[in-house]
Formats: sequence, structure tokens, C-alpha cells
Amino acid sequence: MPDEIVVIEGDGIGREVVPAAVEVLESLDVEFEFVAADAGDATKAATGEALPAETYDRVAGADATLFGAAGETAADVILPLREAVDSFVNVRPAKAFPGVDALRPETDVVFLRENTEGVYSGHEDRLSDDLSTLTRVVTSSASRELAEYACEFVRDGRGPAGDPDEGFTVAHKANVMRETDGRFREEVLDVAAERGVDADEELMDAFATKLPLDPSGYGVVVCPNLAGDVLSDLAAGLVGGLGLLPSANVGHDNALFEPVHGTAPDIAGEGVANPTAAILSAAMLLEYLGHVEEGRRVRDAVEGVLSDGPRTGDLGGSATTDEVTAAVVDRL
Amino acid sequence: MPDEIVVIEGDGIGREVVPAAVEVLESLDVEFEFVAADAGDATKAATGEALPAETYDRVAGADATLFGAAGETAADVILPLREAVDSFVNVRPAKAFPGVDALRPETDVVFLRENTEGVYSGHEDRLSDDLSTLTRVVTSSASRELAEYACEFVRDGRGPAGDPDEGFTVAHKANVMRETDGRFREEVLDVAAERGVDADEELMDAFATKLPLDPSGYGVVVCPNLAGDVLSDLAAGLVGGLGLLPSANVGHDNALFEPVHGTAPDIAGEGVANPTAAILSAAMLLEYLGHVEEGRRVRDAVEGVLSDGPRTGDLGGSATTDEVTAAVVDRL
Ligand SMILES: CC(C)[C@H](C(=O)O)[C@@H](O)C(=O)O
Ligand SMILES: CC(C)[C@H](C(=O)O)[C@@H](O)C(=O)O
Repeated sequence: MPDEIVVIEGDGIGREVVPAAVEVLESLDVEFEFVAADAGDATKAATGEALPAETYDRVAGADATLFGAAGETAADVILPLREAVDSFVNVRPAKAFPGVDALRPETDVVFLRENTEGVYSGHEDRLSDDLSTLTRVVTSSASRELAEYACEFVRDGRGPAGDPDEGFTVAHKANVMRETDGRFREEVLDVAAERGVDADEELMDAFATKLPLDPSGYGVVVCPNLAGDVLSDLAAGLVGGLGLLPSANVGHDNALFEPVHGTAPDIAGEGVANPTAAILSAAMLLEYLGHVEEGRRVRDAVEGVLSDGPRTGDLGGSATTDEVTAAVVDRL
Repeated sequence: MPDEIVVIEGDGIGREVVPAAVEVLESLDVEFEFVAADAGDATKAATGEALPAETYDRVAGADATLFGAAGETAADVILPLREAVDSFVNVRPAKAFPGVDALRPETDVVFLRENTEGVYSGHEDRLSDDLSTLTRVVTSSASRELAEYACEFVRDGRGPAGDPDEGFTVAHKANVMRETDGRFREEVLDVAAERGVDADEELMDAFATKLPLDPSGYGVVVCPNLAGDVLSDLAAGLVGGLGLLPSANVGHDNALFEPVHGTAPDIAGEGVANPTAAILSAAMLLEYLGHVEEGRRVRDAVEGVLSDGPRTGDLGGSATTDEVTAAVVDRL
């Protein structure tokens, strides 16, 4: 039976770049069963819910999901969907591409972001007219599971250097959050030691200073949820923006793939959105489902087009989404 | 009676750059009473405490404090000292200087960081072998006080643009921390509206992408505690590192000034540390105590030396701390 892929275009340019990514998947010699589902601002306007239970259930029951972007309702959609696929790690590569303007072209970092806890716990209380609190949660189990994933990732040569000896860096703020990030730090370093993987550490503020000064110092970076959110977005700024970056929310038996960019309301509907991030997300999906060779082919085709093919407006060109997509398919 | 300034050199290059800053202060026509106090790793080694009660009390009772840096014990020293001066805002300018290598020389941003709460609440619990929690605290009172300060700061023309119409940007993560950062965001925007100050907002992750892409879009940035920590350190990376940046922890009737850099153990004791950040911190101290003209003179002298005077090793020169300090004093 072919793998079932739920396809959620969402809002804005999600409706343009997700079909582009699906077109690329369909052009390969891999059989998938695509199932469309709805979520986002438009869905909320139409049904009252940004994320209908039917969509949640479909995603939870699928083999993988390809998601575009949601507007105002982004958090209402993506946070439950990460839960639906039981995702414990958000994989976020930030890499500059040859021929694309980047502040730090040598940046080549993969963030492995904890995807279930930290300040994303959802436990907030309004205790008085003056006071609100949030319970930041860190467990040894989630920290160790992330670390196990990181060790495997590094040992499989999936880090930027491809060299297992490179190890990883754990970024945290354990000098202030001594108990919670202290636990995170300790468990991650402990798992690395057990697995014989090199791990060094960096305070997240120091990391934010050093990454722009010298990105070549980092490869695989393991961090708590919010640290991963902010530091990976910082890396995106160094490689030229969010426009080209894919991501994977990986669970135990399911996963969701999404471009890091948003709905880009300024250009939505014009057919000129850059489909690169969505197509690269599809490449991550291929690899996740075991089609490693096809994933590599898609990635190579995208890189080829980025270096000497048609370009959308964000990269200084005037090509349409369709033209770029056709050029990628052409090179496969 | 002259203002009483507590002087804490701390560890590492703190022992070199703080005396340099004091020398600059002493060369001015302003009378201060300097009182030395101890804190940091060496103090802990000698007395068992990184921050002796005597130091805390002296700082609490002074008019202002000039602090250098502490090593391993940094958090044990600086967090209580911020409390000692009853500091509600951490002022962190990040500006590139002419003639100094910077990734984004056009960066000119002042962060106004909430300095008492957020994940710095100190409330952490080990609830089980697996689970630890931290209580993130946000109050309307602290948020509004910060915002009032920001409005005054902007209206006094102390923002980078010097133009009150520039307003400020509030950076937060209220799409996820809806109750806590929601409260922060709402109160800050509310105060701005009441005071007739322009305020826009940015999610902190989007800010981390956009700042490197185009720092000219930002001037005064108001943020919760950890966001201010990380985003101001990111800005430091864009202007060439922490080496040149001063900061002020401002309270109601007291304040503490410190370079943003650390103890630099690699060069400590050699007399070659760059005193710029400490001297600029002294300039902020002067302005805080009402010696606005003298503060400006010190800043101008530092900028002059940076652009065509002797330079320490971090800026590609071979001058000593003393030589740079003498050159600054010379220009006053
Ligand atoms: C939309 C938002 C809830 C989300 C997050 O904070 O995780 C986004 O910023 C991301 O990084 O995917
Ligand atoms: C040393 C540490 C506790 C401190 C902080 O997190 O505030 C430092 O990073 C700073 O920014 O002054």
C-alpha cells in the first residue's frame, strides 16, 4: 500500500507552494496516496475552527503530512499538529545556497529543537489582575529522547559536515534556568557521553552573538523549544531569510513537513511565491519515508535551479512559481 | 556631598577595564566618592561567597555601581546585584563604531530589557525524577513600568534616531505565551498609546531573522527579560562582538553599569584588554547621575580613539589597556 500523505495548503502562499511540492513528488517514481485537508485562517472563517477535528485525525492517522502555512491562526494550527504527529523533534536545517545572497554564506547548521515542552507547555494562568504565570516544563525523558535522536543523526552522517566525529552543540540557558535547563543540559550531555558522541555546549545568548560572528563554528545544534525557535530563525537571517528553509516535525511513527516561511500575504495569490522551501520540505519527507535517493535528487535539482535556473522575485528574478517548479521537475 | 560609586572589578579583565573606566571618571571635573567592593569567582574562593552581604549592602546603599565581570559565578553575582539596585530595566545599546569591523555597520539599536521577571523569576521546582518546572512570571506593573521608561526614553530623544516620532518596537512571543507575553504586549502597547508614543511589535523569532537582514528597521526595542538577553546579544554579534558594548541596570534611585563582555580568561592579566565597554559604561553612569555633558564628552573621546587612536588586540591593534585609556583621557 502506498504511504498516505495528508496535504494541507493552509493560507496565503501555502496554496501555491504546497501544490508545487506535490507536483515534484508526483513527478518521481514513488507512489503516494495524497489526501487533502483544511486548516488555517480561511478554514476558521468558513467553519469556525482553524483546525477541524477531521484534519487533526487525518494527520494523526497518516504516514506523513505536508503543510504550507497559516496566517493569524498559525499557533492554533501548527502546535496541535505537532502533537498530532507525536513530534518530539523539529529538524531545521539552515544552509546558504550557492548563488543566493546571504550575509553569512558559510552558514550550514542543523537545529534539532525539542518540540513538546519548555515554554510551549500550554500551562498559563492569570493569577490576579496584575499577575500571570506560565509553567515551563522540562522532563528528562523528552530531553533524552531528543539527545538520542541527535546522536543517531550525527552518527548517520546527517550533520552538515557529514562527519560523525563532529558531534553536536547543546545550546541552553542553564546558568539562569538551573533546574529546568540544568536538567536538559545534563541529560543531553549524558546521552551523548553514553553514545560516544562528542558534545559541547553554549549558553544561548553567547550562541546568538557567536553565530553571526563565525557560523563555521557550528554544525548540529540541540536546543530547548523556544531557544530552537529563535536561534534557527536567527540562522535563517544569516542565509538570506526564511524563504528557502524547510523543516521537519518528526515523531515516532509519523511526521509533518513545513516550509519555515509564513503566508506572505503581500504576494499571495499572484503565482510568484518561491516554492523552494516547500519543495525542500518534500525532500525531507521523501528521506523520512525511506526514499533517500529520491530526496537527494530533489535537493540536487533545487540547488541546480537556485544556482542557474529561473528565480522568483524574492531572489531578484521574475519567474513564476510554476516556472521554478517546472525547472526543478525538469532536472530530476 | 559627592555621589558614592561602588566599584566592583570582579574577575579576569574586570580587574583591568574597571580601573581604566575609573581613571577616565577621575580625569573629569566631577567629584565622586569611589568605594571598592568584592564579588566574583576570586571572592568566592577566598570567602566562600561569590557575593558577600557587605557588597550587596554597599551596592544597595550607593548612588551607582560600576561592575566589571564575574567568571563562573556571573549569575550568582549579577542577578542579586540587579535586585540590590532595584533595577527594572536593563539598557543595552548596540551600535557599530566607525572604523570597527562589523557584519552590519548600520546597526544602531537600544534594547530596553525587562530586568526583574520572566524566566528569571527564580521559581524552579524538581517535581519528580523526570520532571522540573519553572514559573515564568509576568506582571502588569513591571510591564507598564518598563513601558513608561521606554516612552520617556523615546520622548527625550535618547533613541538611536534621536527622534521621538520614531517610537519603539516591542518584541515578544505572545502567539505562544498568550497569557504571560500577551499581558506584557498589551500593557506595553497600552502605555505607549496613553503616552502618544508610536509602538509597533514583532514576534521575537521574526525579529531574530529580520535584524541581521536589515538592522536599519529597528531603533528602540522593548522586550521581556530573556528575549532582551538573547536579542541584544544577537545585535552585539552584528556590531562586531560584545567587546565594545556597555549596559545600564537602572532602578528607581540607584543603578549599576557593566560592560556586556565577560572575564576573557584567555587574555586576563596581560594588560591588553579593551577598556572601551567599561569606559562607555562609565559614560552611561555619568549621564544617569546628571552629568550629561561629561557623558557625551567621554563617548566622543572613545569614538575618536576607536576611529584613529591606538587599538587593542581584539580590534587588530597592539596597544595596551593603559595606552587606550590614556588616549581617551587625552581627548577629553
Ligand atoms: C507559529 C509559531 C507557533 C511557531 C513556533 O513558535 O513554533 C513558529 O514560529 C515556528 O517556528 O514554527
Ligand atoms: C550572566 C547572566 C546571568 C546574564 C543574564 O542572563 O542576564 C548575562 O547573560 C547578561 O546578559 O548580563
